[in-house]
Amino acid sequence: MKVTVEITRRPEIADPQGTTIQRALHDLGHNEVMSVRVDRVIHLEVEGEDPNRVQARVEEMCRQVLANPVLEDFTVAVSE
Amino acid sequence: MKVTVEITRRPEIADPQGTTIQRALHDLGHNEVMSVRVDRVIHLEVEGEDPNRVQARVEEMCRQVLANPVLEDFTVAVSE
Repeated sequence: MKVTVEITRRPEIADPQGTTIQRALHDLGHNEVMSVRVDRVIHLEVEGEDPNRVQARVEEMCRQVLANPVLEDFTVAVSE
Repeated sequence: MKVTVEITRRPEIADPQGTTIQRALHDLGHNEVMSVRVDRVIHLEVEGEDPNRVQARVEEMCRQVLANPVLEDFTVAVSE
């Protein structure tokens, strides 16, 4: 099954990568850029028959490895 | 306007970050994971009235800063 995990920084947590990109864009004259935030999307292929079980396993992977639970939120979507 | 940029590695280009994550997941017993690929999503707020012009400007930013044109493809979606 194909699984898409979106990992977003919590809104109250600063995003230094986004800030750096915004500064680079301003340096190049793109002063119309007011904010930049960078998220990750992880695409997995996972063996399994039961979408609910795959969903639960991938949520466990998020808590263990894929996301930083202090700084980030995640959503898991299973398809096929 | 809100702009969402998705940056994906070209399919023929190896994804070492995905490979590393897959290995970590296998080490933790998640052997059902067959592949992992990591993409970036960049959320921008951009001043402007004309969606077409904002789209063209952000595509220019992708080519200059946001994406690596040798390794990556990008899509730009403007909303609001």
